[in-house]
Amino acid sequence: MSLTTPALAGKLAGLQSSAIRDLLKLTARDDVISLAGGLPDAALMPRERIAVAAEVALRDPAVLQYTESAGWPALREVIAARESAKIGRAVPVAEVFITHGSQQALSLLAEVLLDFGALVIVEDPAYVGALQVFRAAGARIVAVPLDGEGMRIDLLEDLLAAGERPAVVHTVSTFHNPGGVTLAPQRRRRLAELAQAHGFWVIEDDPYGELWFDAPVPAPVASYSPQVIRLSSVSKILSPALRVGWLIAPEKVCRAVELLKQGADLCGSALTQQITATLLTDTDWLATHVDSIRTTYGTRARALTTALRTTFADRLHCTDPTGGMFIWAEFLDNTDTSTLLPTALESGVAYVPGAAFAFADTTPNTLRLCFTTSDEATLAEAVARLVKAASA
Amino acid sequence: MSLTTPALAGKLAGLQSSAIRDLLKLTARDDVISLAGGLPDAALMPRERIAVAAEVALRDPAVLQYTESAGWPALREVIAARESAKIGRAVPVAEVFITHGSQQALSLLAEVLLDFGALVIVEDPAYVGALQVFRAAGARIVAVPLDGEGMRIDLLEDLLAAGERPAVVHTVSTFHNPGGVTLAPQRRRRLAELAQAHGFWVIEDDPYGELWFDAPVPAPVASYSPQVIRLSSVSKILSPALRVGWLIAPEKVCRAVELLKQGADLCGSALTQQITATLLTDTDWLATHVDSIRTTYGTRARALTTALRTTFADRLHCTDPTGGMFIWAEFLDNTDTSTLLPTALESGVAYVPGAAFAFADTTPNTLRLCFTTSDEATLAEAVARLVKAASA
Repeated sequence: MSLTTPALAGKLAGLQSSAIRDLLKLTARDDVISLAGGLPDAALMPRERIAVAAEVALRDPAVLQYTESAGWPALREVIAARESAKIGRAVPVAEVFITHGSQQALSLLAEVLLDFGALVIVEDPAYVGALQVFRAAGARIVAVPLDGEGMRIDLLEDLLAAGERPAVVHTVSTFHNPGGVTLAPQRRRRLAELAQAHGFWVIEDDPYGELWFDAPVPAPVASYSPQVIRLSSVSKILSPALRVGWLIAPEKVCRAVELLKQGADLCGSALTQQITATLLTDTDWLATHVDSIRTTYGTRARALTTALRTTFADRLHCTDPTGGMFIWAEFLDNTDTSTLLPTALESGVAYVPGAAFAFADTTPNTLRLCFTTSDEATLAEAVARLVKAASA
Repeated sequence: MSLTTPALAGKLAGLQSSAIRDLLKLTARDDVISLAGGLPDAALMPRERIAVAAEVALRDPAVLQYTESAGWPALREVIAARESAKIGRAVPVAEVFITHGSQQALSLLAEVLLDFGALVIVEDPAYVGALQVFRAAGARIVAVPLDGEGMRIDLLEDLLAAGERPAVVHTVSTFHNPGGVTLAPQRRRRLAELAQAHGFWVIEDDPYGELWFDAPVPAPVASYSPQVIRLSSVSKILSPALRVGWLIAPEKVCRAVELLKQGADLCGSALTQQITATLLTDTDWLATHVDSIRTTYGTRARALTTALRTTFADRLHCTDPTGGMFIWAEFLDNTDTSTLLPTALESGVAYVPGAAFAFADTTPNTLRLCFTTSDEATLAEAVARLVKAASA
């Protein structure tokens, strides 16, 4: 009776329960302020609106039946309209595929686009969920570093000039997790040009784009080329429990994803997809709702950076968050954040060491801080605890 | 820019959009009575109860947050208690894993349990969703025929005696789809003994077991051995849109499934899982609700078999449904049901030719009829149209 077959052993090697996930279990203690999570604030999720939308949706028996693998038609239409506005071209419904959160879009796409051993370019630091998927697919992974303007496209060009031929380049283009940065407009254009020139797919993974604080985000990479597959979800603006994500891709990609989705789980929930369609269609309410998340997260982000800069001064550099959920910080002395973590937990504060997101080179003096689920006073207290730990 | 990579081409070969699915598109015409579907009746789904449970669940912000990959704890507890009663031993929560419908349980299990080329035994005729999953996993598939008492375990024993060493034996043990039959108690026991003796896993796929008409079903195969992994869901008794299925398996299997689930789609919906927990916990209401489905389906099943037997007499044999959703019928003359189908559609009735479920030998004179979504008068009219087509 075989359980860990050789094939599974390979897959599991790529899917080891992530360091973040294991850490989250340790930081659930009441006396620890956790900036280690990566969750949106449940208190900001529209419970009453979802309840009303559910009650209305349930007047139609069809929302309780199996639905199409590609998604509930009403939701696909709303997403097509929204994405058309973002991408700047008319996106047909046939190019919209609804998934069980955008993680499923990523995992189904990896199956569609990657052969074993295919080259995938990721960012360093990387979104851990993408690393898991690409490793499980047996991809060869090469990482390109981020700087303050996102992925170093010049270094990607160097790789291409050296003869590397990626099947896929994956980027969290806006308000990067964990890096906090946004890919600059000229880099977006250049990345799309490279995809066209070299025949690779770009997966533009964009769960955070709506969460800008002061100014809307640049046009998506997908606005520059049809070889860019866009992924997003409502998890960060409505609720992860709707389990609604999507991909925007050429129809032939969507049809291949559809066959895999049928085998994977048949279809999504017509009920949660109709609720989502209702909320996304009420554009006045949605604008106010998302604005209030932006305001709250923006206030928290500024409180955290202010506390960090006031407290640590020249000892720590942190990103200037313009949106999203994360701040990326770097100790400018020799503080090793993995070594510091147990002391920090003792002092009552948790974060994720940057090494958890590093693809190749470990970056021992970096850390990711999530500001979404703590108010300003709590964030200030967290920083006070962190400096106490770092000065011990 | 590669789309259909060699690996994908292999997977898609196993995942060709099923004949049933393609057929369903053709039979959605208003003038066709479709007995071709495989859907529960949406009119019998508890819309009001789900609306109330949703409203109550949404008082807790936690139901809108990401949840554990293994499932919302309250639901895992309810399922553990229910399955304990069915299997006849105390099933710990650690052996309960919630999935996005039982199809996801099957696809994740195939990844965990099967290496490329591993032998899987299925039933013939087979559940098409299982064939898709096992083909996509690159399994070598051998089919064992059904008779009136379910899988021919004697023929499975012949295969084992001939040296075949399956990794997995898959059975829809109760109210088979499409075969309509139920595995007899002594065969259940023998199958479990063989699993123990030869070290293979049994996947007991049981979505229909609650839908008995006159008498409860035999003890599950899983009651005879821990090497039997049980799969079920609430899709047929509550609603497919809850997307709640589960597997009951040894903890080591559940932990491997958990790692794959994280990469596949992170987690399910705490909201629909809490709704499901609420409905399953209200046992008085549930008993009445499920009884009413049983009564309705039982009445429809009898109406269909009565009409078939009255109309076709000795020309057609059909199963005597004791539960579930399907009748399996066989023309005793040379009627080829694939050839007949276009004429039947012209006459205004649809069914699925048995060939769509055949693993190896085609069975040209068989057909599957679903009785769940038509009332008695409609079923009688469907049979009248079928005999007209078959006599043309």
